[in-house]
Amino acid sequence: MIEGHGDDGYRYGQIRMNFSSNIYAHADLSALKAYLATCLDGIASYPDPSPRHLEGLIADDCGLETSEVLVTAGATEAIYLIAQTLRDEPTYRVFRPAFSEYEDACRLFGYREAGQAALCWLCNPDNPTGKVYDKDYVKDLSRQHRVLVLDQSYEDYTARPLLSPSEAVALGNVIQLHSMTKRYGVPGLRLGYVTASATLIARLRAGMRPWAVNTLALRAGEWLLREKPRILPDMKAYLSEARRLREHLNEIEGIEMAPTSTNFMLGTVSPAMAADLKDYLALQKGMLIRDASNFKGLTPHHFRVAAQKPEEDDALVEGIKEFVTQ
Amino acid sequence: MIEGHGDDGYRYGQIRMNFSSNIYAHADLSALKAYLATCLDGIASYPDPSPRHLEGLIADDCGLETSEVLVTAGATEAIYLIAQTLRDEPTYRVFRPAFSEYEDACRLFGYREAGQAALCWLCNPDNPTGKVYDKDYVKDLSRQHRVLVLDQSYEDYTARPLLSPSEAVALGNVIQLHSMTKRYGVPGLRLGYVTASATLIARLRAGMRPWAVNTLALRAGEWLLREKPRILPDMKAYLSEARRLREHLNEIEGIEMAPTSTNFMLGTVSPAMAADLKDYLALQKGMLIRDASNFKGLTPHHFRVAAQKPEEDDALVEGIKEFVTQ
Repeated sequence: MIEGHGDDGYRYGQIRMNFSSNIYAHADLSALKAYLATCLDGIASYPDPSPRHLEGLIADDCGLETSEVLVTAGATEAIYLIAQTLRDEPTYRVFRPAFSEYEDACRLFGYREAGQAALCWLCNPDNPTGKVYDKDYVKDLSRQHRVLVLDQSYEDYTARPLLSPSEAVALGNVIQLHSMTKRYGVPGLRLGYVTASATLIARLRAGMRPWAVNTLALRAGEWLLREKPRILPDMKAYLSEARRLREHLNEIEGIEMAPTSTNFMLGTVSPAMAADLKDYLALQKGMLIRDASNFKGLTPHHFRVAAQKPEEDDALVEGIKEFVTQ
Repeated sequence: MIEGHGDDGYRYGQIRMNFSSNIYAHADLSALKAYLATCLDGIASYPDPSPRHLEGLIADDCGLETSEVLVTAGATEAIYLIAQTLRDEPTYRVFRPAFSEYEDACRLFGYREAGQAALCWLCNPDNPTGKVYDKDYVKDLSRQHRVLVLDQSYEDYTARPLLSPSEAVALGNVIQLHSMTKRYGVPGLRLGYVTASATLIARLRAGMRPWAVNTLALRAGEWLLREKPRILPDMKAYLSEARRLREHLNEIEGIEMAPTSTNFMLGTVSPAMAADLKDYLALQKGMLIRDASNFKGLTPHHFRVAAQKPEEDDALVEGIKEFVTQ
């Protein structure tokens, strides 16, 4: 479960442009970093074993009770914690292609796949497709399963309507995942949170080890909630740039990009392989894309990119053109 | 599993002296903090999903192969991961009083306690007693169980001989826990590691979620392994100070401190309660101690302290004297 994800530039060395994870790589983190520089004394103390202060700030922000919020070391920890906690009825359903961690976590705790599953995983906006499911569809789905996990890690990167935390809590059996990583472009911190009914949150909390979240990540989370800094680009302009990138990629012979409602998009290259395209771009151009062939249900030709700055997107289009015509 | 641990000064406000966790509170972290201040850009990238670079540095340092090392988000994550991974034979044994997380983790994964248990947990030096078990005793114990978890979190705080990582790996069925938190006084980072046979490490690794360790914690770990800074006090002098503290505490009417081979020590106060002693010291003196009454097998009269600077230890002795004579 640890191979083949995006943002693996550490494997290549010189990466100048990163299209490989689903976030905007140019978030302005200078104020957050300046704040964290003042928090470094915190490494010498244990974090609060359960980060109730940050959970309270998040609850206030979403109009929930603190008992309806659980802070985790990234959405990935939440995925494993959910599979661990609900394993008394170990059947699951996912919509493929899907983020591999849902299935990896379920397999680790002995689940089997089933149509009439107890536990259903839905990513909305979906990764890697960029598709957004209607609110009514999501509500219907929640009625068909004992628990619906609604991974809204990419919720800040779409203009389409999504279930709010309070709407999801009201459904009773929906566990909603949220990612500070994606919202603020801080994947290095490992910080996310879950919202759900107080009953479900209490069950999850009982299965969580103490001191799961690093002190600096907690301080960053509290600061982000207090300050609400403008870190993401203007979303209307950014999504419009994503559409422009998609159109230009679609004009390349051998490239086909699927529709998307967010900043990232799934495509195919043919007759070449996505792994070769990725290597070419990384080694020749210093550009990192996501080889999506390891998503179950996809092919060795699938890749995923997230739009970045217009000049980077132009360079990506040129790089891919060079690859297909070489 | 998240109530009643040490280092809970956040519950009291003004704490000036911390005797409550088993570490030296005055580790000189200035060089590490200065280094981390240069690493803050790292929050914008995913950590390596599995921190092989740091594992390699640790392996070199202990004379092991990288396949015999697993980095975790603190020793606590390792405890839960072990219970999760070995749950196919869910019987355990602990030596009481013991760190509550061993039993909490076992219960979470459906273990039951048994004399002839598959999984045995031993903390050496022991927490909260400060006792050190002989190497021969530990080897014997490893022969009596399928797997022996040997928590050496406090290994740097004793002059008594302990099993080295390579000796423990050679036994085949010993999983040894190590704590960067304790070694370097950095509990806020959440960083520890496990050493064991490549077979056991591979099983543990398969159950671990990706990106478990925060990027800044990884950078800190790499720097600490490279630089080997002198962060702990001179151990001979520090252990001698711990003996001095113990003698002075033992002179107080109503206080009885058990023998210890390390920097921390377990004691009783009577006829008063440890919880009242703790509240008195925190609220009246700004001193934090560990109420040890929630260790299974101990009583409401048990408390634990770790030696600090001589002048702080003197102040603690005076504070406790005031409490018992008030």
